[in-house]
Amino acid sequence: MTGNTISPPPGHGLPDEEFQSRFERAQAAMHRHEVDAIVVTAPHNVRYFTGFNTQFWESPTRPWFVIVPREGEIIAVIPEIGVPGMEMTWVRDIRHWPAPQPEDDGLSLLGSALADLPSRFGRVGWEMGRESVIRMPISDFDKLRAQQSNLEFVNGSGLIWELRMVKSEPEIDRIRHACHIASAAFEALPATLEAGDTEYDASRKIRTELMRFGADTVPFAAVISGHDGYDQIIVGPSERKLGSGDILFIDLGATYDGYSCDFDRNFSFGEPSDLVARAHETVWQATEAGIAAARAGATTRDLWQAMAKVLDAGGSAGLNVGRLGHGLGMQLTEPPSNMPGDDTPLVPGMVMTIEPGMEFAPGKMLVHEENVVIREGGCELLTWRASRSLPVIPV
Amino acid sequence: MTGNTISPPPGHGLPDEEFQSRFERAQAAMHRHEVDAIVVTAPHNVRYFTGFNTQFWESPTRPWFVIVPREGEIIAVIPEIGVPGMEMTWVRDIRHWPAPQPEDDGLSLLGSALADLPSRFGRVGWEMGRESVIRMPISDFDKLRAQQSNLEFVNGSGLIWELRMVKSEPEIDRIRHACHIASAAFEALPATLEAGDTEYDASRKIRTELMRFGADTVPFAAVISGHDGYDQIIVGPSERKLGSGDILFIDLGATYDGYSCDFDRNFSFGEPSDLVARAHETVWQATEAGIAAARAGATTRDLWQAMAKVLDAGGSAGLNVGRLGHGLGMQLTEPPSNMPGDDTPLVPGMVMTIEPGMEFAPGKMLVHEENVVIREGGCELLTWRASRSLPVIPV
Repeated sequence: MTGNTISPPPGHGLPDEEFQSRFERAQAAMHRHEVDAIVVTAPHNVRYFTGFNTQFWESPTRPWFVIVPREGEIIAVIPEIGVPGMEMTWVRDIRHWPAPQPEDDGLSLLGSALADLPSRFGRVGWEMGRESVIRMPISDFDKLRAQQSNLEFVNGSGLIWELRMVKSEPEIDRIRHACHIASAAFEALPATLEAGDTEYDASRKIRTELMRFGADTVPFAAVISGHDGYDQIIVGPSERKLGSGDILFIDLGATYDGYSCDFDRNFSFGEPSDLVARAHETVWQATEAGIAAARAGATTRDLWQAMAKVLDAGGSAGLNVGRLGHGLGMQLTEPPSNMPGDDTPLVPGMVMTIEPGMEFAPGKMLVHEENVVIREGGCELLTWRASRSLPVIPV
Repeated sequence: MTGNTISPPPGHGLPDEEFQSRFERAQAAMHRHEVDAIVVTAPHNVRYFTGFNTQFWESPTRPWFVIVPREGEIIAVIPEIGVPGMEMTWVRDIRHWPAPQPEDDGLSLLGSALADLPSRFGRVGWEMGRESVIRMPISDFDKLRAQQSNLEFVNGSGLIWELRMVKSEPEIDRIRHACHIASAAFEALPATLEAGDTEYDASRKIRTELMRFGADTVPFAAVISGHDGYDQIIVGPSERKLGSGDILFIDLGATYDGYSCDFDRNFSFGEPSDLVARAHETVWQATEAGIAAARAGATTRDLWQAMAKVLDAGGSAGLNVGRLGHGLGMQLTEPPSNMPGDDTPLVPGMVMTIEPGMEFAPGKMLVHEENVVIREGGCELLTWRASRSLPVIPV
């Protein structure tokens, strides 16, 4: 036990003022980007602007549209099934159709809402760019573009991420709480693990602990193992059995009130080999360097450089991940990326993962990860810092 | 206790022959649809053709592409981070780039793979249509379309759903197992619930039971309640406290080996009112009618009609869902839809939800759901049938 305690639950649902403030920031950004509106269709963007919180996105059947105009009020153009739920949010202009209706699934309703928008720039931003998906049939999107010939459909992803990248204190409270819940679950896990468990067993155990400590959902729980290290970090669990000499890697995206943590922990079945212990020390120290470098005014390249320097000195043979951490919020990963060429200036309120990793022998990786929020002059650690030595599961 | 037992776990991972057979069916379909290839980018389609099983789709950063050609072998064009994982699958032609690389995230690599394809029809199918999303920046998709001027990009969604709609026996085994796990969890739940629990408490309890009985993940668990019924079925849980006279509705999409169940159960806190009990009997009987109508040769309209008749006779004031059930498989909902105008003929191997519901008083709904697989002359029930009377939680 580390003696850490979980932050009090901040509660579910954000106040209307939070959405009002997002809308105002969006309107100012639309002015700068010279668009009359942005239209969002994807789960996290719809929730960001409306507060509409559902797991129903798992059903691909019905498209949903939210128009965020530079002037006027937010308009939700949604399937009938969602009307009572949308009425619980701060959105007042709710237009609906009896979906599913394949021959016209909201398209004409959306089209007339767009045509009625006050036009100054003649441009509408859509989720067309980096780290974005338009969640509607693209054949319908093509049709809409052709119909709305007096409107230019432009890439609004940069504008949207610019808003989402900097978190409010209520958002940070939720991410911190998710981080604490996962930290507590990670701390409790070793007592439940035993040699002979499969990766799937370990997965069910960590998910159960997450529920016990108050997580709402677990969209991501990569559970991966290998003798003396692992060769990748995104495919798993499998039915591989855990035993002496194995390193178990668990990377968690658990949520509280729709906000996620994203960090991992490593466990050694039996005492780690010297090779693994040395690599672990390097990656742990690289994390220290990343945390120390995380402050307002630094850039994502600075973060990368601070970690890369330690990894290189520790004998890193590279990493197939392509970056050493990223933004975090409603989604497991968000812009920006800690890597050369990204060069995003860190500002207070940005929540970042510090995620150094390296291949230290052929096919053997170790990856660490912590979550921080950028503050003036430094950062606040949101996770409970991993122990300097690998936790050992008796075998 | 109903005396039902959970089917033996079918195990994780499908044999290469399953993917070989999918590929052959796809190639025959491509011939019929006159396309040279289909390109898939979305999680379930990538997994359907390759077996690549990851939760990493939660990260929106990197696009993934799989080319399924009418001639030749499947080509994966993927970020470097996925290479070791893709090498575990049956796919042999794996091309990769060091993602993230915003200035060219796989686009030129994908473009040259497409340009090299044997061309007969000059058409390539994409996930452009109904119940589909292209999981890549659409600005990149537009650029690719413009570059590949000798290839027509057409809507391949119909072709893909045609394949996925009919399940193999290994797929049905996995859906059945997911259904049994959720049935057992639903059966165990009442003993853990008590008046004063919030919907979030109930959510954590059912998720914990799902883990205990062997579920892998729980992408969907709508937990919703209301006095004498509920007014919607997609937004929840909330912090509402459960008490006397409440109906608790839980709709579950839990997975085993990447295959989902999708069915709900209702619980009454204290004895239900006569109004609720009568509505429950109607919806339970409508489910019976739906199950009886589910057989090869019937259509989705027939299924709808069988249920709608019972609901109308029971005083239904309608339903905002737009249909009375749908296909089920890797995703919580898949085509087809049980509704007039769909008219899909049911064939053996189709897994369907039977999902009647109605508004029986203003703002008061009841929805039931069971899962079946279509067989010659009838159907096999995959879920453990809901009890005819509402389970009562003592208050």
